Amino acid sequence: MKQDYSLGEIAAFLKAELRGDADVRISGLSSLENAVAGDLAFLANPKYTSQLGGTRAEAVILRGEQADSFSGNCLILKNPYLGYAEISAWFSRTPAPDGNVHPSAVIHSSVDLKDNVSVGANVVVDEGVVIGSGCCIGANSFIGGGSVLGADCLIAANVSIYHDVIIGEGVTLHSGSVIGADGFGFAPNGEGGWQKIHQLGGVRIGDWVEIGACTTVDRGALEDTVVGNSVIIDNHVQIAHNCVVGDGTAIAAFCALAGSVKLGRNCVLGGYATVTGHLSVCDNVTLTAHAYVTKSIKVPGSYSSSTTPLMSSIQWRKTAVRIGQLEDIVQRLKRLEENKD
Amino acid sequence: MKQDYSLGEIAAFLKAELRGDADVRISGLSSLENAVAGDLAFLANPKYTSQLGGTRAEAVILRGEQADSFSGNCLILKNPYLGYAEISAWFSRTPAPDGNVHPSAVIHSSVDLKDNVSVGANVVVDEGVVIGSGCCIGANSFIGGGSVLGADCLIAANVSIYHDVIIGEGVTLHSGSVIGADGFGFAPNGEGGWQKIHQLGGVRIGDWVEIGACTTVDRGALEDTVVGNSVIIDNHVQIAHNCVVGDGTAIAAFCALAGSVKLGRNCVLGGYATVTGHLSVCDNVTLTAHAYVTKSIKVPGSYSSSTTPLMSSIQWRKTAVRIGQLEDIVQRLKRLEENKD
Amino acid sequence: MKQDYSLGEIAAFLKAELRGDADVRISGLSSLENAVAGDLAFLANPKYTSQLGGTRAEAVILRGEQADSFSGNCLILKNPYLGYAEISAWFSRTPAPDGNVHPSAVIHSSVDLKDNVSVGANVVVDEGVVIGSGCCIGANSFIGGGSVLGADCLIAANVSIYHDVIIGEGVTLHSGSVIGADGFGFAPNGEGGWQKIHQLGGVRIGDWVEIGACTTVDRGALEDTVVGNSVIIDNHVQIAHNCVVGDGTAIAAFCALAGSVKLGRNCVLGGYATVTGHLSVCDNVTLTAHAYVTKSIKVPGSYSSSTTPLMSSIQWRKTAVRIGQLEDIVQRLKRLEENKD
Repeated sequence: MKQDYSLGEIAAFLKAELRGDADVRISGLSSLENAVAGDLAFLANPKYTSQLGGTRAEAVILRGEQADSFSGNCLILKNPYLGYAEISAWFSRTPAPDGNVHPSAVIHSSVDLKDNVSVGANVVVDEGVVIGSGCCIGANSFIGGGSVLGADCLIAANVSIYHDVIIGEGVTLHSGSVIGADGFGFAPNGEGGWQKIHQLGGVRIGDWVEIGACTTVDRGALEDTVVGNSVIIDNHVQIAHNCVVGDGTAIAAFCALAGSVKLGRNCVLGGYATVTGHLSVCDNVTLTAHAYVTKSIKVPGSYSSSTTPLMSSIQWRKTAVRIGQLEDIVQRLKRLEENKD
Repeated sequence: MKQDYSLGEIAAFLKAELRGDADVRISGLSSLENAVAGDLAFLANPKYTSQLGGTRAEAVILRGEQADSFSGNCLILKNPYLGYAEISAWFSRTPAPDGNVHPSAVIHSSVDLKDNVSVGANVVVDEGVVIGSGCCIGANSFIGGGSVLGADCLIAANVSIYHDVIIGEGVTLHSGSVIGADGFGFAPNGEGGWQKIHQLGGVRIGDWVEIGACTTVDRGALEDTVVGNSVIIDNHVQIAHNCVVGDGTAIAAFCALAGSVKLGRNCVLGGYATVTGHLSVCDNVTLTAHAYVTKSIKVPGSYSSSTTPLMSSIQWRKTAVRIGQLEDIVQRLKRLEENKD
Repeated sequence: MKQDYSLGEIAAFLKAELRGDADVRISGLSSLENAVAGDLAFLANPKYTSQLGGTRAEAVILRGEQADSFSGNCLILKNPYLGYAEISAWFSRTPAPDGNVHPSAVIHSSVDLKDNVSVGANVVVDEGVVIGSGCCIGANSFIGGGSVLGADCLIAANVSIYHDVIIGEGVTLHSGSVIGADGFGFAPNGEGGWQKIHQLGGVRIGDWVEIGACTTVDRGALEDTVVGNSVIIDNHVQIAHNCVVGDGTAIAAFCALAGSVKLGRNCVLGGYATVTGHLSVCDNVTLTAHAYVTKSIKVPGSYSSSTTPLMSSIQWRKTAVRIGQLEDIVQRLKRLEENKD
């Protein structure tokens, strides 16, 4: 059965001002548009204000000035979107950890499992690992020798954590993520092949980090690869060896940081943003989707490069030819300018 | 031993007109160029017509007008390529499901396994899952609580299906694919970190969908993420939370749909095509490789944006400078135009 | 306890000229800058020569001309970087294979395990597989029926190898990699859906290949997909069906080879380089990051295409407009040129 809560309980948790009926039962979250009876909706983006009148939501989270023109039950917050985020955990359908170690898990005798750890079926944990209290390790995941997980980590199914990976508290790793695989380091062997450079560093991940499905964070060549606190990383991201990612930075899908990139704090990388090896990006930089950083960025701000603008394929074929002629175009323009005089 | 079939059997299955020897044995499929004795080849692309004379194929699938100039055994179809596709299953080397549940699989007692389900070694299936008749679940895969698979799904090894994922009939999921991981939803917490928005929706996948290796389909934030019927998705694709993908659409490798994208029916996305969040793309749109959609598309057709055209690296470095000067180029051109009068 | 070696032992292994104290103990590798007592550092890139004076390294690998101005212990090699790579294996923290087959592994009775094979917990190996001597198969990995691994392969945890995949000697596959999933082959079925083309080929991988985490190599449609010897492939790479990759080629993260691409020997692909289906790239070609190859390359050299150069987002928005006007710009320039006469 779906759990429900009184609006009053929710108001208390969010420290929100409640207008209306504190006893009404809330059994779900929704957008204003799709809300049904029992739902708590929220108004974060002002462009949806017009939906306030018609919503069937049981109650709405909104700002004070919006509440004045709304007759329904509401919770008043300065930041309704944050309030919605904070209360979302109450309605999560993610199965709660059961605090058990499944008998099929293969856990080395030296492993230090702290209190209240849940370990799913067929999990494999190698020698010397430490798993902090309250952690939940999903089915079929692997944790390599000497790795350490802080308290309250949530490791989904089929996650691969190599040896000597140090993870902080409250970290979430989604399925298919791979932490600590070898960085891509090879020296030409002079005979047309490659001599592997064994990757002697590890990976250190801070507290309250979330890492998406099929995302990889490689181990360092000599020193560790480092992901700071409160970093959020989407699916299909590549963090190469010896990168350092600053606290609070957000990285969208398909971004790639090449080797030894230093990314500052509170940066935001749109999808497919990439940074060339050994460069630094300072704090508070936004890279829009597809931005390709080829020299270090020292001034906060928003930077872009991109594929060309979207056009019909016919127009693109013509434009592509013209891009190839840009040097010629400039030379012709120069000649005209010179002749003008 | 390799199985073989008579050409007559194959003709009957494909409803093809047979010219030549119906009793000849066919033990494999091949291209015209590489065919050996026992092979059935096909002529789909007219540019390979010249290979018809020299082929060593036992028989060839082709169109009527091509058959007239070919003296060998042949099967006549209006669409030889479709005929080749239809008969390909007869020669597949993919191991057939054995209808057994491996004793090492960990299946919650509440799981509803329909008839003739095959479950590989070390598979883990959580509470309340329903697995339709004829499904085959590959080794080391995980299916989370409450998920439902329709009949005849083929789940490869090491697939991760989270909780509350509803999958139709005849769906194929390849290794490393992840269905139902959390969408990338966070609200800035006002202190330089991020408040997770728990993802309360699920994923719904239609019938006859194929999803490639290491592809991710995230669960919805409030409502479900939806993939329609007969959608085919290659490897390394990202379908973010709350996307809706229309029936019959094809998506090549490394495409990304950001959150809440609505993609129409019968669209074709070339590799690396990306669509910005909350946009709509109407039915029957082709996006060429690398196309980056930054506003909604309302007219069917072919659209492109791209990296720049390929050139020597030396030329590219010059061109890159000129792209940075485009605004200046336009201003200089304007001045010339004004002076002309 | 950390193992250490005498500088003399290391010199002998590297065939390096030793100047200084052959008995000094070396317990780690480091950069010149970060070296501590006991470390062996190396000077490969001349731009770090100034760090030679201040390093605390116990010894340094360097070239003869650099040694003359260095008073510490040193190993002289023509190629210090290659020397560092060669000795790196001595200091690797990767757990050594134990030569045991874990009792939880599910190995078909027909599997041919050669000498000294290590098989981790919950590994699943299907019918008819051959695993060469000295191989190490990581926890929770899967090897499909009829596949063959040469000697000394290192398969990490959670790797998926489908059926009929032939792998050479000394191959490393990282976690999340998928070898032999179906190529993306479908024929339109004439009713808005797709007829799957069963992928009848396999995959052949040469000797001394390394394949990164979450990288996929699809099986061929009719013939095999082929990866040559000494090929190195980073994370998140897609090698589509029927590609052939030449010996010694290096492929960085997020590269994609579409179907039937022939890539030559000793090529180097920067991150996100992509090649359109059925094209050939000759030997000794470098593709810089983001290069998108749309016609075959027949002349060795360095080729580029790219996203646009990085600029402020404000400047990019103006530039994007101008790119859309390039055809117009050219026409206006032509008119000016004509009027000039």
